[in-house]
Amino acid sequence: MTSGHLKYVDTGVDISRAEDALARIRDKVRLTKRPEVIGDIGAFGGLFKLTGTDTVLVATTDGVGTKLELARMLDRHEGVGTDLVHHCVNDALAMGAEPLFFLDYFSTSRLEPDVFARVVGAMADACRAHGCALLGGETAEMPGMYAPGAYDLAGFLVGGVARDRILDPASVREGDVLIGLPSSGLHTNGYSLARAIVAKRARVEERDERAVLDAPRPELRGGTVGDALLAVHRCYLEDVRALRAAATVRSIAHLTGGGWEGNLPRALPGSLGAVVARDTWIVPPLFLLLAEWGGVPNAEAFDTWNMGIGLVVVIAAADERAALRALPDAIRLGAVERSAGPQRVRWA
Amino acid sequence: MTSGHLKYVDTGVDISRAEDALARIRDKVRLTKRPEVIGDIGAFGGLFKLTGTDTVLVATTDGVGTKLELARMLDRHEGVGTDLVHHCVNDALAMGAEPLFFLDYFSTSRLEPDVFARVVGAMADACRAHGCALLGGETAEMPGMYAPGAYDLAGFLVGGVARDRILDPASVREGDVLIGLPSSGLHTNGYSLARAIVAKRARVEERDERAVLDAPRPELRGGTVGDALLAVHRCYLEDVRALRAAATVRSIAHLTGGGWEGNLPRALPGSLGAVVARDTWIVPPLFLLLAEWGGVPNAEAFDTWNMGIGLVVVIAAADERAALRALPDAIRLGAVERSAGPQRVRWA
Repeated sequence: MTSGHLKYVDTGVDISRAEDALARIRDKVRLTKRPEVIGDIGAFGGLFKLTGTDTVLVATTDGVGTKLELARMLDRHEGVGTDLVHHCVNDALAMGAEPLFFLDYFSTSRLEPDVFARVVGAMADACRAHGCALLGGETAEMPGMYAPGAYDLAGFLVGGVARDRILDPASVREGDVLIGLPSSGLHTNGYSLARAIVAKRARVEERDERAVLDAPRPELRGGTVGDALLAVHRCYLEDVRALRAAATVRSIAHLTGGGWEGNLPRALPGSLGAVVARDTWIVPPLFLLLAEWGGVPNAEAFDTWNMGIGLVVVIAAADERAALRALPDAIRLGAVERSAGPQRVRWA
Repeated sequence: MTSGHLKYVDTGVDISRAEDALARIRDKVRLTKRPEVIGDIGAFGGLFKLTGTDTVLVATTDGVGTKLELARMLDRHEGVGTDLVHHCVNDALAMGAEPLFFLDYFSTSRLEPDVFARVVGAMADACRAHGCALLGGETAEMPGMYAPGAYDLAGFLVGGVARDRILDPASVREGDVLIGLPSSGLHTNGYSLARAIVAKRARVEERDERAVLDAPRPELRGGTVGDALLAVHRCYLEDVRALRAAATVRSIAHLTGGGWEGNLPRALPGSLGAVVARDTWIVPPLFLLLAEWGGVPNAEAFDTWNMGIGLVVVIAAADERAALRALPDAIRLGAVERSAGPQRVRWA
């Protein structure tokens, strides 16, 4: 929402309702624009050019969505703290920025020091690992607002980028190449759908959700759905650094809420689309299992989840070999082409 | 929490539990410190000095707490959007900074476009009024997380200040003068206590809470407790600008969660305290009514609510007359003195 972007943490969202909400505030948000603000609604982060320096600030805010509920159910709280930082760092990366500082908001009905320390301690560890200062935070205790043990998190990250290093979708050309980097799982999006599927499966298996999450599955090589769902959102900071050292990066899409169609076009100019070959990577078994259990059509799955690719980088075609050499697990997914319809990601 | 500060939105918080939680993460947060970070835990905002410019960034995050529940009960949503922006702006002011940009986080179980537009539209209006860009936001729809119609808000604000204009509590001297600026009500703190009092009063009056909130009260000159509780958090941006033009401001305390003792010492060096004359201003009738209904002792009331003063500014004694001339509704509250005990605000 607002001038940065409209992102929905969960697929339980009715998109038309969300768009209606955004339309109502868009004009008011535009009126807040200062001369230092660069760009418009729709980017992965807001850009603010400070006077007197070449550094442009990139600001982004995210939540963890209903992955929080899974963490609570399985009493595993560290991951969501890390998820939040990584989600924000990746959004800043998509604008070309490196993280500078992070702030968090932790909201609950009754503060549990142990859970709080695990969640925020993990945020601090993630910040440290990526050279980002944890500069502040707010803890809100709101009796009656949340179910017992439940909490919500919001993260806020400011990154910095030299003006000529900002990644601008307008620089993308027809024929540019799309490079994909694997995800570690659902990252932090699509959990309302995933949880609904687990609840449905529990009815089929005639046991409770917790048992469904904890059962070893041959499809997951003996791993559990709970572990796979709580896998930590991968941070692409080092990958993007290596890639930018080796190749000319035009733009980056972070595949979050809305999956492929909801995010990849955000890294492209309006007239262009993407052709992506689905056989260039193996969709991880978690996605297949969820889709099977939930009877989720392929199109919906790709519009909801990242399906195994967390970041898509657009590079000049001439740089393809250099890019793939720089990143051992990168995949050539496809190319940029003229867009022929409302659907801007074409599967091949 | 974290390196910025530990603030509690509500007085329902068990402070020892909160301190326990903070103690557990403090070391980890310290490890995230980068060379650009100035200052330490306890300030109203985190400071980050960008290289290549004299501008220091000030970052702060806040929520609105259970004032949100009152807004929902009375279906009055604009105020809380404004509250959130003003709260953040005042925290930045307390560090000496002017607002640059703001981001919001809006979290709910099912997005109501009308309520969303009223809340976030009010944020946009408040940002515009104070020259602050609304640079981005996140909307999270988390089914089952919140009661029907309930939502949570977090705000993130980045301000800027020239290095030599940062307000530093270390610059405060014994004999400096304390100037107070009136609040418009509870601002955004102490609502859990206020709501518990309203619930208790409803039992005494044998009607529901809504009726208690909506009844005209002679103590409020015929106004209602609902209106008084939803009064918008006053923004002190223009006041502080005028004051800094007229006088040397040493430091500022924004009286938020924790009332006087919880905030005024944050604007003083560790060895100094404040002596404040209670008869220098008239405590607004809302506070007296709540204290009477709730049987709240004076000490607790002043440790929870601002009691009619929203901002305390510390100035050099020689500037007192100039300061009071610059701000027609400012009040000389008292002075800075040597601190003699754990209680650093002494009432006179």
